[in-house]
Amino acid sequence: MNANEGHDPAPSRPRARELGVRIGTLPTGRLNAITDVPGVRVGHTTLIHGDGELQPGIGPVRTDVTVILPHEGNLFLDKVPAAIHVLNGFGKCLGQEQVDELGCIESPIALTGTLNVGLVADALVAHAIRENPEIAITTSSFNPVVGECSDQYLNDMQGRHVREADVLAAVDGATHGAVAEGTVGAGTGMSLFGYKGGIGTSSRIVVSKAGTWTVGLLVLANFGRPEQLVVDGVSVGRMLAQTVEAPERGSIMIVVATDAPLLDRGLRRLARRAPLGLARTGSISGHGSGDYVIAFSNARSVRVPHDVAPGNAVLPLGVLAENSQTMDPLFQAVVEATEEAILNALFRATTLRGRDGNIRFAAPLDVITQALRAAGRLGGAEYP
Amino acid sequence: MNANEGHDPAPSRPRARELGVRIGTLPTGRLNAITDVPGVRVGHTTLIHGDGELQPGIGPVRTDVTVILPHEGNLFLDKVPAAIHVLNGFGKCLGQEQVDELGCIESPIALTGTLNVGLVADALVAHAIRENPEIAITTSSFNPVVGECSDQYLNDMQGRHVREADVLAAVDGATHGAVAEGTVGAGTGMSLFGYKGGIGTSSRIVVSKAGTWTVGLLVLANFGRPEQLVVDGVSVGRMLAQTVEAPERGSIMIVVATDAPLLDRGLRRLARRAPLGLARTGSISGHGSGDYVIAFSNARSVRVPHDVAPGNAVLPLGVLAENSQTMDPLFQAVVEATEEAILNALFRATTLRGRDGNIRFAAPLDVITQALRAAGRLGGAEYP
Amino acid sequence: MNANEGHDPAPSRPRARELGVRIGTLPTGRLNAITDVPGVRVGHTTLIHGDGELQPGIGPVRTDVTVILPHEGNLFLDKVPAAIHVLNGFGKCLGQEQVDELGCIESPIALTGTLNVGLVADALVAHAIRENPEIAITTSSFNPVVGECSDQYLNDMQGRHVREADVLAAVDGATHGAVAEGTVGAGTGMSLFGYKGGIGTSSRIVVSKAGTWTVGLLVLANFGRPEQLVVDGVSVGRMLAQTVEAPERGSIMIVVATDAPLLDRGLRRLARRAPLGLARTGSISGHGSGDYVIAFSNARSVRVPHDVAPGNAVLPLGVLAENSQTMDPLFQAVVEATEEAILNALFRATTLRGRDGNIRFAAPLDVITQALRAAGRLGGAEYP
Amino acid sequence: MNANEGHDPAPSRPRARELGVRIGTLPTGRLNAITDVPGVRVGHTTLIHGDGELQPGIGPVRTDVTVILPHEGNLFLDKVPAAIHVLNGFGKCLGQEQVDELGCIESPIALTGTLNVGLVADALVAHAIRENPEIAITTSSFNPVVGECSDQYLNDMQGRHVREADVLAAVDGATHGAVAEGTVGAGTGMSLFGYKGGIGTSSRIVVSKAGTWTVGLLVLANFGRPEQLVVDGVSVGRMLAQTVEAPERGSIMIVVATDAPLLDRGLRRLARRAPLGLARTGSISGHGSGDYVIAFSNARSVRVPHDVAPGNAVLPLGVLAENSQTMDPLFQAVVEATEEAILNALFRATTLRGRDGNIRFAAPLDVITQALRAAGRLGGAEYP
Repeated sequence: MNANEGHDPAPSRPRARELGVRIGTLPTGRLNAITDVPGVRVGHTTLIHGDGELQPGIGPVRTDVTVILPHEGNLFLDKVPAAIHVLNGFGKCLGQEQVDELGCIESPIALTGTLNVGLVADALVAHAIRENPEIAITTSSFNPVVGECSDQYLNDMQGRHVREADVLAAVDGATHGAVAEGTVGAGTGMSLFGYKGGIGTSSRIVVSKAGTWTVGLLVLANFGRPEQLVVDGVSVGRMLAQTVEAPERGSIMIVVATDAPLLDRGLRRLARRAPLGLARTGSISGHGSGDYVIAFSNARSVRVPHDVAPGNAVLPLGVLAENSQTMDPLFQAVVEATEEAILNALFRATTLRGRDGNIRFAAPLDVITQALRAAGRLGGAEYP
Repeated sequence: MNANEGHDPAPSRPRARELGVRIGTLPTGRLNAITDVPGVRVGHTTLIHGDGELQPGIGPVRTDVTVILPHEGNLFLDKVPAAIHVLNGFGKCLGQEQVDELGCIESPIALTGTLNVGLVADALVAHAIRENPEIAITTSSFNPVVGECSDQYLNDMQGRHVREADVLAAVDGATHGAVAEGTVGAGTGMSLFGYKGGIGTSSRIVVSKAGTWTVGLLVLANFGRPEQLVVDGVSVGRMLAQTVEAPERGSIMIVVATDAPLLDRGLRRLARRAPLGLARTGSISGHGSGDYVIAFSNARSVRVPHDVAPGNAVLPLGVLAENSQTMDPLFQAVVEATEEAILNALFRATTLRGRDGNIRFAAPLDVITQALRAAGRLGGAEYP
Repeated sequence: MNANEGHDPAPSRPRARELGVRIGTLPTGRLNAITDVPGVRVGHTTLIHGDGELQPGIGPVRTDVTVILPHEGNLFLDKVPAAIHVLNGFGKCLGQEQVDELGCIESPIALTGTLNVGLVADALVAHAIRENPEIAITTSSFNPVVGECSDQYLNDMQGRHVREADVLAAVDGATHGAVAEGTVGAGTGMSLFGYKGGIGTSSRIVVSKAGTWTVGLLVLANFGRPEQLVVDGVSVGRMLAQTVEAPERGSIMIVVATDAPLLDRGLRRLARRAPLGLARTGSISGHGSGDYVIAFSNARSVRVPHDVAPGNAVLPLGVLAENSQTMDPLFQAVVEATEEAILNALFRATTLRGRDGNIRFAAPLDVITQALRAAGRLGGAEYP
Repeated sequence: MNANEGHDPAPSRPRARELGVRIGTLPTGRLNAITDVPGVRVGHTTLIHGDGELQPGIGPVRTDVTVILPHEGNLFLDKVPAAIHVLNGFGKCLGQEQVDELGCIESPIALTGTLNVGLVADALVAHAIRENPEIAITTSSFNPVVGECSDQYLNDMQGRHVREADVLAAVDGATHGAVAEGTVGAGTGMSLFGYKGGIGTSSRIVVSKAGTWTVGLLVLANFGRPEQLVVDGVSVGRMLAQTVEAPERGSIMIVVATDAPLLDRGLRRLARRAPLGLARTGSISGHGSGDYVIAFSNARSVRVPHDVAPGNAVLPLGVLAENSQTMDPLFQAVVEATEEAILNALFRATTLRGRDGNIRFAAPLDVITQALRAAGRLGGAEYP
């Protein structure tokens, strides 16, 4: 099932902002989503089947894949500058060294369950070859970028149930517009503060004399214990701690997109701010957590062409100068959007039962909103 | 003036905890200071003289130096494992590459104003030679560790007014026990969220089956704009924003001490958590900020001897195994103590007028506590 | 075909040392191979079938996999300290971030062709689950380590022809003893200085008062243009330059094994010396090269247990003190063995024709030895 | 004594090339010096006084400072993109973290003896303030870049004899044109392969369809034991090993200048190739060695302005595309020029007696050239 077909991107559970939560002070983009960055698309494939006792290699299956496409063109031929920051490397982000070396991404960014990384990488290779039949024949190899979190609590991880077709469907079905959140795509089997987690997104608009830029965030959120949860500064988790059992094997993958014309070093600086937003949700980036941030810019003036005529090898770029006026608003945007994207993952995710009857419940939005209201932090609508 | 002589380490302004602020859930050490880690000492020299218009190179002077001594022995002969993490490298931490390469510190850790780094480093060399007359004659060279923040708003930075004697006095006068906070030592000329900042400290005790460890923190806090300030989750700063002019050229140096037996890699993991505590005070780690974390362990079972007999070169160490049970409490301790140490710097710092009549006011604790009380976040005494 | 079954590990072509080449001054181990480090095993699976024109996805096939097993026990339960150094990151080394974070390897190290990385990683997961059925059920996930070079010139890379069974066969068939070199395993389709390249190995023994240690090296060598080749300081390549066409898309994966009791930081220092040996063969680490060094120690006194009883979490380790006496011989060993392992890959590799009739010829040992003899560099036997 | 006044930059001892040594295949620049990169200047101050027994803090003095100025303008206002690579961090390179963070250098690059770093940094601050009186008053702070090697064998290091005036004299006296090599400036007290070492320089010209670029190198060479010395592939050192006593506490600082329009990431790639040239001289980058590479580009199309008008914050840059055609020649240039610069340091350095009667003799060029001739490696003039 491709979440983009027949899946309502805004089901019954509200986003944080719809409940009146206001994270930070910068305005959001129109959709408050990573897709507010013009050209960025997101696709999910969701795999849910089987129930009952874990049969390793067979099921139950609660997993799959989410892809982010930085722009609408051919990514291999028209790469985007990028950087990957590792906060806690108990995890994998295939492709990281080449992004480090060359400062760009030439692949859709795929997120999935931990043990699926090999198969998803292989599927991205298949996709790249389909789009660029010359890969590894007359031109160089290809660097797929795949991040992961562990869906161990709900899913038969050993089964590596993702299939090449799932990845291709997510890429081919990737769309602009609203992004499905919560229990979807790579987020299907994920847990967050002991509740159901998964995919969340948010965005911010930065207006300055230098220009108007969008920062869009998407997270695969899968970390934390209930008592750690902080919502907009309120330690909501301390009111929840007794109610949910919480073996933590968390992780978070954060994808930062922007149209601000930054190269790899500037993007690395953006990526390094995402943990500051993560921290505000209560995370301590636990030992077992694989916490990664992938940042890219799809501004045209910083693109990295695959083919360059020898006589035109000095590329004319337009790159944002880095100073407090230009960078601090972008940093703030990353911090705010990270925090809100994680909350959206938590707020939107729906209860799911997985292997061995393990259940991750949707976070109790009534308790959360009551706590926020008591602390004077709710400006908007009530819930339910 | 040496702050350790005749300086009351607990003047009229209260620490955050004395006002009822409770950061996190772990217990503090006895002093709630970096000196709770047995063996750690802190020394300050404070230099305040002159007033009125800036005369570059002459004054007014609002600066000086703070030193942290990891243990009571000879640091050159008995080094401590250490790691330095850079969150935003717009700044200096002399000695960082050797700490990276060899995984240890052999010097007192000195903090000072930005342009003083050269002279303070030179003074640490003088001190090391005094203690180890064989340095650079029959044995290897010496690696001083010096971090800095900019005291530009109040101090005649161009004057580099620190003297070798100031550094030696801070080292020789370093003591166990309560640590002077706020407008003292390297913190003399620092600003924090547009108010007066400087030195702050805090600690946490971690009790587990693996052992009982102390994590102690000291910060030189010099960052932020008023509207960013968050205290225990409450966006106090939004109530203050209008009242203080705020050109930001911030920075923070964070020193993490522990007696948990970790080597450099484990300590780097601790260091990487300090930004998560920093984030909770509202920081976005602005472009112009030099944000560094220096972490060391002074546990005897992980010390690095300078001289090793060739036949005994395989050192018997006792090193903490890293897993969620052992590391997560230490990570939490770092996050909590970072947040609280920054608040202590803010709460304790006293108003200071510097060059050109520039004033940094002590943070308005009445407004802050009112805001916290309104949000239900104050458990303790009132202020004033 | 598993190269360890029915494949003569010492076919007609001689190793560099058999021809009288003497690299460096340290003694080699008994086999002059990575397997001189007690406990280390190597396995190859070689896949050669089809001929003629490239049919993308079908063949001809000239590829497969080589695995290095750090010790004979269960690697997941009894991990080895390790570090990965990236010289030029135009390539992939899956698993690198977790090795960085936790300082250890818990997987066989697999080498393969570039586009096979996903499938080989997936096969290592299958192997780890077979050995540890609790992975991702009651215990944490698993971090496979897979490096790669491009076998584009000879192989149908797009086909990703490696199969799970190939990887399992290489792991299960891995042996102590002499290591097959040249056109074998992952080396099957590789090129070296425009000639046939592939697998090479070498070792050195370091004797000091601190102890006697072995350093073993294995390379997957796939780089360089003919005119760059230097053998033992003699620019042999300049005499060869006209004779071989040389489109360079090189790479080298270097695996350093030792029984010297070093942790991750010390091993990283060893890893950083391998490029110095690489340089002596003439490499400039070209733009298109993915040049990685993976170093591990299998000394018992530094092993990293997967399970630790909470009450015994302070591990008693024996770690080599780092000073010039202890480290310089190990560094020299790495430099010498890297150079010699690359020469062995070149000397042992046999001519292979691949896709589209592309041929990589075995290096002309007669020309090379003549050049060396003329320069007074040959101490031993002649060739042929 | 300022080496640029009254010091013959080409004294009696010849450069490697003058003796017929031909390193690599690329053409050198006109001067075969770092100053072949248009705009780059070099200045030395040399301090030699006193003789006899070491009186710590007094003398004998064999030390001082060398500075490299990337261009002729105001470096603080018109910064150059740069990167610093650490091969072995047993040493210091003050300023490294800010170069990492912001990707540029705003200071002359100073090289000196290890314990002088603090004072030299302070002198660079004084110079920067003289040129830019607004530093740390109305504008941000300043990041001096200072590298070092240990001149312990000949010099009274404890004395830190460098003075602010020495540094200012080196900066003010810096010139285009031929560069004094050997026993001069920071190189005064340095040792190389057990002989006298110090300053060396070399350059290469890269011609391609993308443009014609110069790569210039300057080294402060202070490493190695006699038996390690390799000259153009010939293990000359093995013939010298008995003749010179050699306690090794080496280090090398390498400065790479280019006018190829590269930003920090591209320059980091260049910097990482310098160790490959270092390796070819026989270095193993010993434990006690502080081995650093500082690379910058002074191309106008990549300069980093200090002040940017908010409305013009998107800078129009011209940046070299990175591919094998553009980068491999630059990499080769770095490798070749590093090797030759080190040889020039060795060949040019003149015998010097220092503290306690310690002598470093000039390398025996007759023995070296005989060995090269015997190996067929000498194309040019004889010596003497």
